[in-house]
Amino acid sequence: MLRKSFLLVLVLFVFTVSFAQKRQVKAVAQVTVMNPMLSYSDVVSALLKKGLTEQQAYQNLAELTGTIGGRLSGSPQAARAVVWAKNLMEKLGFQHVRLQHVMVPHWVRGKIEKAWIADRRGRKNIPLAMCALGGSVATPRKGITAEVIEVHSLDEARALGAEAKGKIIFFNRRMNPTLVSTFAAYSGAVDQRDGGASAAASVGGVGALVRSMTLVVDNVPHTGVMHYQDSIPKVPTAALSTFAANRLSAELERRPRLRVHFVLDCKTLPDVKSANVIGELPGTQLPNEVVVMGGHLDSWDKGKGAHDDGAGVTQSIEALRLIKELGLKPKRTIRVVLFMNEENGSRGGKKYAAQLPVNEKAVAALESDAGGFDPRAFGVSADSSVFQKIASWASLLQPTDICSIRRGGGGEDISYLKGKASALIGLEPSNQRYFDYHHSDKDVLANVNPRELELGAVALASLAYFISEEGL
Amino acid sequence: MLRKSFLLVLVLFVFTVSFAQKRQVKAVAQVTVMNPMLSYSDVVSALLKKGLTEQQAYQNLAELTGTIGGRLSGSPQAARAVVWAKNLMEKLGFQHVRLQHVMVPHWVRGKIEKAWIADRRGRKNIPLAMCALGGSVATPRKGITAEVIEVHSLDEARALGAEAKGKIIFFNRRMNPTLVSTFAAYSGAVDQRDGGASAAASVGGVGALVRSMTLVVDNVPHTGVMHYQDSIPKVPTAALSTFAANRLSAELERRPRLRVHFVLDCKTLPDVKSANVIGELPGTQLPNEVVVMGGHLDSWDKGKGAHDDGAGVTQSIEALRLIKELGLKPKRTIRVVLFMNEENGSRGGKKYAAQLPVNEKAVAALESDAGGFDPRAFGVSADSSVFQKIASWASLLQPTDICSIRRGGGGEDISYLKGKASALIGLEPSNQRYFDYHHSDKDVLANVNPRELELGAVALASLAYFISEEGL
Repeated sequence: MLRKSFLLVLVLFVFTVSFAQKRQVKAVAQVTVMNPMLSYSDVVSALLKKGLTEQQAYQNLAELTGTIGGRLSGSPQAARAVVWAKNLMEKLGFQHVRLQHVMVPHWVRGKIEKAWIADRRGRKNIPLAMCALGGSVATPRKGITAEVIEVHSLDEARALGAEAKGKIIFFNRRMNPTLVSTFAAYSGAVDQRDGGASAAASVGGVGALVRSMTLVVDNVPHTGVMHYQDSIPKVPTAALSTFAANRLSAELERRPRLRVHFVLDCKTLPDVKSANVIGELPGTQLPNEVVVMGGHLDSWDKGKGAHDDGAGVTQSIEALRLIKELGLKPKRTIRVVLFMNEENGSRGGKKYAAQLPVNEKAVAALESDAGGFDPRAFGVSADSSVFQKIASWASLLQPTDICSIRRGGGGEDISYLKGKASALIGLEPSNQRYFDYHHSDKDVLANVNPRELELGAVALASLAYFISEEGL
Repeated sequence: MLRKSFLLVLVLFVFTVSFAQKRQVKAVAQVTVMNPMLSYSDVVSALLKKGLTEQQAYQNLAELTGTIGGRLSGSPQAARAVVWAKNLMEKLGFQHVRLQHVMVPHWVRGKIEKAWIADRRGRKNIPLAMCALGGSVATPRKGITAEVIEVHSLDEARALGAEAKGKIIFFNRRMNPTLVSTFAAYSGAVDQRDGGASAAASVGGVGALVRSMTLVVDNVPHTGVMHYQDSIPKVPTAALSTFAANRLSAELERRPRLRVHFVLDCKTLPDVKSANVIGELPGTQLPNEVVVMGGHLDSWDKGKGAHDDGAGVTQSIEALRLIKELGLKPKRTIRVVLFMNEENGSRGGKKYAAQLPVNEKAVAALESDAGGFDPRAFGVSADSSVFQKIASWASLLQPTDICSIRRGGGGEDISYLKGKASALIGLEPSNQRYFDYHHSDKDVLANVNPRELELGAVALASLAYFISEEGL
């Protein structure tokens, strides 16, 4: 009996709270009509209050990372993520929930990834933590054992000439720690990961090992996409942990002719049918004018794709949920697009941009693909008048921890909307920790803070709503 | 032989780098003389470059937390921290390195901290994670076993009247999650921790259990200071983990007359002689005008005091090291003060303010006591013209991740300089994660990011240097 009456109290309580929330929403909506400038501030407050109370972005991220995990394009996990996202959008009452099919690459890591510094007989001497780079071919079954040449740029590798023949080329240029933007530091080093294999092969190298793209020294390798140049033989390539890279470099100082052994059995299978997942809140006045909010549903297979880009996925869904459940009625359509295959092909982003309906106007596209950290800025690529309009909302966004609207920015998936949408906008959270986790086993839920994640969702919701009301 | 030549190369390399750095410093110094506005930007760049390359704040924090750990006022660890800090300042070549002695409270946690929901015979049924609050008296040796009344404010406790007699009062008001500033949420809840015991005792309660001051639900209790009101009997008080608080609350719904047992053997010993640790770079033109930078050297005994306030300690030391090693010659004195006993008495802060030399002018005081997270703002308490002057440097500070200068702010230790210094300034980093760790076993080095910590040091160094050059 005690339990039953407790349940009754609980039900009454929930009913009361939900009734109170609905009343509150009506109040917000009324204010919206009455006084536009005041209302936006009230809308942000209401979004913050609901978001920080319920923290559903984090709940959804826990589900995505916990029940599905890493979801590399073409994998069964990516297929399950598509179903999960579609079901979630439907459950939340989003409209026009649909899949936009797209063929995606299907690279698989395989089961064997090993590297070591060999002793004189080629046996394991010093283990090196490593993982294949996405897109790499396998080594021969017995692996590759060869001398190593350390270089710090693609040009340095290409300039090796005949010296490189039969060698493993080891790209060991660090991300520049003196750059405050870790994305700038990443951009300045990632050419080694992307093009190291072909640079090595162009001078006869038999493989490429690349220092992981991270600013911390630890023993966790970071994967990521690489590309082969046509007309150059494909050689296998892998990332070494920064610790392993430092160790190898130090050993090479002592023993320049040491040999490294590594083995990979990754491979590329035929393309797989996958999909972008789309849902929206149709505009009440200008439904054909569309504000896109999104992130990418695929991730690497290392870790759980929590920050990259489970954060963007769950923030975009949460942003639209908050707008919807607060009873806001956006003038223009606000659409969530969860892009497939950002990591190794961007097929989803390209497909979405290529198949925009002719009767539709892409007003703006917002992407969250820089991690679920404390928001700091929106980066806006737009012409000057559009930029000024968005920048004029800076003080309205400030309560969501957005402290600046800066020129330039966007995201890989929405970049294909350039020239179509009036503004491409990237959510830019604090980035100091991003590459600690990025593309590695450390990109897990435990490294995401629920409030930081939710603040990003509220920032997205706020800006998307302003654009839907004001146009650009 | 190989090793020897490697060593030689290493020595030559270090020499070359250090020579290059010295040349660079001279260049900076020359620019400083030539063009004040340009130079400040160059100074910030040089501070950033050196700081982010060397990351010594983190190295020092690793040493402080790793070799000494938690350092509650009066403890042997706090005494060791004083020696450690003095030695470090001397090693770094700071001048006038000295101790400013101060008597501090000496509360000890003891070895027994247990709580559980009892079964009908008073035996352990459901364990409750808890820890004594700093300053609490012990329970009787056999502990306290009593019924529990849950309340959500001091007033609610005081209004219980005779009902409270012989009961344990359980303060379970949450920090408000809808406030974006976690410090505001903390301020809105911490009165329960501080005054819960006396409020309980004022109506005959025999003890107070208080929900931990954190926004996450986990099983880690968070300690912190509490105060007894004179003329009210002292009853023991402890923090429950948020998980334990939720559990107890849920059980009370089912079984309102359940009894909780808890036992503590903490005690307060006689005051102990301790010290603030002080070192400086004397001003080259106005040595009697002083810019103070500091944090507090003491911490709680739970965890290692990494964010609170090992961060402020190591950032302040690092800031002065960077200024010194770059060869900057500040016009005014820049002084690092590591305050003792911020956590449970602020005796160090009071002592420093009370004993300012008469011939000295306190220009400004900067405190870092909000964790070693990504910098966001400086909070400035100053009159309007002084505030405007500091705010005019906002764009110069922006490269250090400082995105605003806001009115209000400071820090507990420097608050005693109010009316003496022209500006009290607090470094305000991202605060979403602060109370996840604060005063608990989770306040450890692993939860500090080296780059975020260092950026705070560079921000402090930059602003302290601007003030030293420009005055206020």
